[in-house]
Amino acid sequence: MRKLILLFFSYLVFVWANANEYKVDGIYPSNWWVGMKNPKVQLMVHGSNISENTFTINYPGVKLVKVNKVENPNYVFLDLTIAPLAKPGQLKIHINGFNGDGDISFELKQRRKGKGTLYAQGVTSNDFIYLLMPDRFSNGDYSNDKVPGMKDQSLNRDSLYHRHGGDLKGVINHLDYLQDLGVTTLWMTPVLENDMPNRTEHGYAITNHYKVDPRLGGNDVYKRLSDELHKRGMKLIQDAVYNHTGLQHFFVQDLPMKDWLNQWPKYTNTTYKDQPLMDSYASIKDREVMSNGWFTPQMPDLNQNNPYVANFLIQHAIWSVEEFGVDGWRIDTYIYNDLPFMNRCNKALMDEYPKITLFGETWVHGMLDQAFFTQNNMGNIPFKSNLPGVTDFQTNLYGINPALTQNFGWTEGVNKLYQTLANDFIYVDPMKNVTFLDNHDMTRFLSQVGEDIDKLKMGIGWLFTTRGIPQLYYGTEILMKGVSNPDGWVRLDFQGGWKEDAQNKFTKEGRTEQENEVFNWTKTLANFRKRSSALKTGKLMQYVPEDWVYTYFRYDNNQTVMVIMNTATEEKTIDVSRFSEQTNGFRKAVNVVTSSSNEFSNIKWIIPAKTLWVLNLEK
Amino acid sequence: MRKLILLFFSYLVFVWANANEYKVDGIYPSNWWVGMKNPKVQLMVHGSNISENTFTINYPGVKLVKVNKVENPNYVFLDLTIAPLAKPGQLKIHINGFNGDGDISFELKQRRKGKGTLYAQGVTSNDFIYLLMPDRFSNGDYSNDKVPGMKDQSLNRDSLYHRHGGDLKGVINHLDYLQDLGVTTLWMTPVLENDMPNRTEHGYAITNHYKVDPRLGGNDVYKRLSDELHKRGMKLIQDAVYNHTGLQHFFVQDLPMKDWLNQWPKYTNTTYKDQPLMDSYASIKDREVMSNGWFTPQMPDLNQNNPYVANFLIQHAIWSVEEFGVDGWRIDTYIYNDLPFMNRCNKALMDEYPKITLFGETWVHGMLDQAFFTQNNMGNIPFKSNLPGVTDFQTNLYGINPALTQNFGWTEGVNKLYQTLANDFIYVDPMKNVTFLDNHDMTRFLSQVGEDIDKLKMGIGWLFTTRGIPQLYYGTEILMKGVSNPDGWVRLDFQGGWKEDAQNKFTKEGRTEQENEVFNWTKTLANFRKRSSALKTGKLMQYVPEDWVYTYFRYDNNQTVMVIMNTATEEKTIDVSRFSEQTNGFRKAVNVVTSSSNEFSNIKWIIPAKTLWVLNLEK
Repeated sequence: MRKLILLFFSYLVFVWANANEYKVDGIYPSNWWVGMKNPKVQLMVHGSNISENTFTINYPGVKLVKVNKVENPNYVFLDLTIAPLAKPGQLKIHINGFNGDGDISFELKQRRKGKGTLYAQGVTSNDFIYLLMPDRFSNGDYSNDKVPGMKDQSLNRDSLYHRHGGDLKGVINHLDYLQDLGVTTLWMTPVLENDMPNRTEHGYAITNHYKVDPRLGGNDVYKRLSDELHKRGMKLIQDAVYNHTGLQHFFVQDLPMKDWLNQWPKYTNTTYKDQPLMDSYASIKDREVMSNGWFTPQMPDLNQNNPYVANFLIQHAIWSVEEFGVDGWRIDTYIYNDLPFMNRCNKALMDEYPKITLFGETWVHGMLDQAFFTQNNMGNIPFKSNLPGVTDFQTNLYGINPALTQNFGWTEGVNKLYQTLANDFIYVDPMKNVTFLDNHDMTRFLSQVGEDIDKLKMGIGWLFTTRGIPQLYYGTEILMKGVSNPDGWVRLDFQGGWKEDAQNKFTKEGRTEQENEVFNWTKTLANFRKRSSALKTGKLMQYVPEDWVYTYFRYDNNQTVMVIMNTATEEKTIDVSRFSEQTNGFRKAVNVVTSSSNEFSNIKWIIPAKTLWVLNLEK
Repeated sequence: MRKLILLFFSYLVFVWANANEYKVDGIYPSNWWVGMKNPKVQLMVHGSNISENTFTINYPGVKLVKVNKVENPNYVFLDLTIAPLAKPGQLKIHINGFNGDGDISFELKQRRKGKGTLYAQGVTSNDFIYLLMPDRFSNGDYSNDKVPGMKDQSLNRDSLYHRHGGDLKGVINHLDYLQDLGVTTLWMTPVLENDMPNRTEHGYAITNHYKVDPRLGGNDVYKRLSDELHKRGMKLIQDAVYNHTGLQHFFVQDLPMKDWLNQWPKYTNTTYKDQPLMDSYASIKDREVMSNGWFTPQMPDLNQNNPYVANFLIQHAIWSVEEFGVDGWRIDTYIYNDLPFMNRCNKALMDEYPKITLFGETWVHGMLDQAFFTQNNMGNIPFKSNLPGVTDFQTNLYGINPALTQNFGWTEGVNKLYQTLANDFIYVDPMKNVTFLDNHDMTRFLSQVGEDIDKLKMGIGWLFTTRGIPQLYYGTEILMKGVSNPDGWVRLDFQGGWKEDAQNKFTKEGRTEQENEVFNWTKTLANFRKRSSALKTGKLMQYVPEDWVYTYFRYDNNQTVMVIMNTATEEKTIDVSRFSEQTNGFRKAVNVVTSSSNEFSNIKWIIPAKTLWVLNLEK
């Protein structure tokens, strides 16, 4: 740990010349690697009057191509190329200052081993993602709960918006729990430093792109978590925030140039309306407000059209993958970014890491709106996205939610879920979409369905059997509930994650009977799915819902899984001869949870009220 | 009139040979033309044992290429080619019967004059379509109210589903009314013979594709109506029904072959669910039931995969355009047809009549669903439609209806209308879509909006100012109301269309003050639109709605029209400086109905509650 910390802070040397003419506060990226596919890297050097100097580099294979001075003399941007055969080592950036010389140390590391096998592996429909908020999951290190010098000193578990002390060590401590549940992939809300005066629990107001928040354990513990995951054959998704940053970020407090941010004559919030980006009838004004308006007054909007900003963000992404061994990349507030920038950024990541998974948050309404932001089958549209997948809000808002909360109607109830999936043809590959019941911004699913355990189980059953990459939000499996108004109510602590907690929901003994029922349901289905080629990568066939009942199949050459969802509050009788395209050749259907079975020789089956059956077909 | 009737029945000669071996009941098409682009025509000859004969044709330029016998000896299909230089005249089809010879007379006419100028002109966004049901609009000829020998003898204006006696002469009598209102194009529910025992008022159960229903006046009066329209510079749309036919059609009662219809082991209704046609996850079974299930037990589903059926329907379409001088073609129940057939049929019409307008009824839910059936910007989908336009149910169900019936919300109220139009990029040309407030199957718009006259006026104002081809349903302008449950309530008579009516809503004096208010609003806007290049063919720019108010512009190089729709029940103040992209260079906005004006030097404008302003911008 000590070694890593020293490395990380190695650039923070003050460079003393004859007088105090300049000072180096930081260099970003904080290090780089030899042997990257892209030989270029642009270093941002920050410090008082840094640009009033000349810079030279004398390191075999490394060339300082250009020194870029910008409006603010406290910044200089150095364009380097690193030849394929350059060796790892400490590179010195020599500063020839007005009143004397100095050096900045910059490490060129050997690359991480196992790209595409041990990291940057991608997260696919073979996986099961667990999303958690590290401040709210488990406190594994009480010593880092408050960090002196940081602006938020609010530690207080009784408040929704103060820090609660959860951290990465707490996550490491519960990897057995997650693995037992069937989880293969961990996604945490952002772990980078949020040195903001308040509301730091969510992590989306980044103040240093090269520093994991010390209250979570810092870079070192994040790397350990990554290693622990990979040791278990599990994967890591990082939550990326390109659109905005925290107001207290050094480059906001001391802007490199005026147009580093999207600035407005008076404060202008985004409308949060995606339509002007795609609408042939949109005004330029509406488009600008959408993309360049600020997300909140506390989160300035980065001007991704500025090439220095773009380089900074792209390099930060690549750096994170290489430094921390990230496998997948979830992109926050995707639709608010400059979309051409996003294509360049995505391409840079995919060029360097061909197997990496990228998916963006697309909290929009409508299949066309969502498809616009990912790879789609549309031509002649204002912009073509190269993003492979999205957080699938459509199968949520217009899918599983109405399926379990509305009466069955022509376009309502489970018909809505059916209809939404029937529009999947608009995507290049809907299997790359991340399906979910809820997340850190939404009312928890148990509360969405009126705290009905049967409906929660149906939702979880659907999640593990429909197409795409399933994502569960922490605590869903132990009946955590809460309405997202305000959102703190859906970000409560996982009981048992703190040593002082009266109950430990991580253990069977700490859970109630109902909690164990749902935990076991989740675990059984997740682990069945782990072994089920049909559920992981098979095709989907769905039938027009009839009388509250929706039936679909996942199938490949080796396996056929039949799912029947009765959304009614009464039992229903169905005629399974209708599904002969899928059931021909099979003798019976075995319930993968209860092991009871139904024979196809009997064509009338009775499905109990509010029940989802996952059935493995047998010959 | 006498001459035309004689012509029409000229094929109904009995062909007597030495014995009663065969009989000719009909030949379809009933005539054809010389000089058509496509030299081929296939004649269906129907009559007892007709196929047991040999056929010859001896007419300069006409060649009998093939005689096709089918399962039922009562049919024979003759493939003819007609050389470009063939002359008009009476062609004899010589029958060499088992026991003697005979002739069938078949007329080859000179083509109608003025294709693309006097007929087959196309109906575009320059037009304003009025949709009416001829049985319910006006009775111009009491002598044809009941026609002896027809199965439905129900004449009874007191019943929703009996015949009321309206006819084409009644329509001709009111063309002045329609023209005064600003209408340019007439669309009537189908006028072809529906010799069914009941429910003949709607016209969708055709029993003879070459005969206008005699209760409406027959072929002759239909041609007169077409001529009268064209004389006035107006246009005619015919309502085409390809998917099904009336159960009493001769070719259903005496099937040419088993697979003339889509037959099922037991009666199978369509599911009315379009999704299986596009859904990558659909079962073959669901797809077949959708397309080949019957629309109702009274309307058998035609098997358009049968090449004889396909030829019959396509030739019927071309015959109708040429015979009656049709300008546009509305295709009923578009989504239930065999889609590859529809593409061939559409192409045949567009090849022969390049300017003709085709639009299909697409009563579906979702932009992708609707766009699937028309020319769209999607690639890599199971089927590419060549249909130029659709009846735009999306801007209705998910547009103007929620705009005026829901509270303003993130995705509700007028935001829904905005969102739906913002997805127009999926169409090749959304200006070819037919926009409407209601039709003969839907609750009348006045009833949709809770009988609120202000909202009705807003809906009409939107209809004339948004993109597309506006269509008004008869009686909307005189406050006709009714809930479509059952649908007869939205098919009531236009008061004044019958001489015995107590009130005549066709006249100012016969209308109430409120009726005149809405009539004048409609007339003023329709006639303003007639002269407004911006409203007819200009581009649309729409702004994100704010606080219940939706603002959009129609503009071209010559004119800018601004529309402000306040959907709230209270007045709203808006800041017009937001719209500077469109308003720059203009001094004031003149209300085209009231002539009052607002200056742009004043940026705060107050819009009264439930008000739509149509403003012509002036410098």
